[in-house]
Amino acid sequence: MEIERKFLIAQMPDRLEEYEHADIVQAYLCIDPVMRIRKHGEKYVFTYKGSGMMMREEYNLPLTGEAFEHLLPKADGSRIEKTRYLIPLDSAGNPLPPGVPTEGLTAELDVFTEPKSLVMAEVEFPDQVSAQSFEMPAWFAKEVTNDPAYHNSNMSKNE
Amino acid sequence: MEIERKFLIAQMPDRLEEYEHADIVQAYLCIDPVMRIRKHGEKYVFTYKGSGMMMREEYNLPLTGEAFEHLLPKADGSRIEKTRYLIPLDSAGNPLPPGVPTEGLTAELDVFTEPKSLVMAEVEFPDQVSAQSFEMPAWFAKEVTNDPAYHNSNMSKNE
Repeated sequence: MEIERKFLIAQMPDRLEEYEHADIVQAYLCIDPVMRIRKHGEKYVFTYKGSGMMMREEYNLPLTGEAFEHLLPKADGSRIEKTRYLIPLDSAGNPLPPGVPTEGLTAELDVFTEPKSLVMAEVEFPDQVSAQSFEMPAWFAKEVTNDPAYHNSNMSKNE
Repeated sequence: MEIERKFLIAQMPDRLEEYEHADIVQAYLCIDPVMRIRKHGEKYVFTYKGSGMMMREEYNLPLTGEAFEHLLPKADGSRIEKTRYLIPLDSAGNPLPPGVPTEGLTAELDVFTEPKSLVMAEVEFPDQVSAQSFEMPAWFAKEVTNDPAYHNSNMSKNE
């Protein structure tokens, strides 16, 4: 079970390229349930997610590169391409400098190049209480957790 | 983890239609790993199976009817259609009469109509020891556990 909140970004962290990051290509075979194929760096994974917004049953299962290439033409709509940066946060939710480990939360900062330019951050929480008590730091612009337009699966739909 | 052995059939059980049975339609999005969609009676399920012959990591995850219909045109090759009969076995591996519960094993007897006519039985075992000690009863003709030609995923391939 994952508990996460999503935010648009007001200000990018300094020294962004020094944070741990990886290129991601993903596409969707189905939206409900979500059936996603993803290349994450040199790893390939198939993900199934059940229904629901903030809490969703999720399975991540291994794929080969051959299976990924076989499944990619079967996907609906557009593929998504983005670079994911892992940004460790201090207790106020602000970015720690690159290389400083966090004792708390990490933001996944996604810089999309396909199907359009967009920057979005996801924060995963260990439980409901910490998710609900998290206050939006100033470098986040707006919460979009409950806006379906910012589900990656909907972003992949052709207009 | 499932441990199963597969057999061709020498003699069909008497009173076959009185055993519990259901119509199955299934097709494959991918063969390695196996990614299968199935309609089983009125239920829809997506199955992922890792590599290996007799023991394979398997996940069965729910689909909606809409998701099944959405995914079916994405499948490779031919769809498989079969009726599955559940045949309770006595301690010698012979069919118990319809309606008699088994304290032991059950054979899944698959009568295929698509892509071709074929009858095959699978027996699932609780552990390796019982799988290895099972002796083939006379109503089974031949073991095909390790013959890839009798994997449903290979049967779906277009010749």
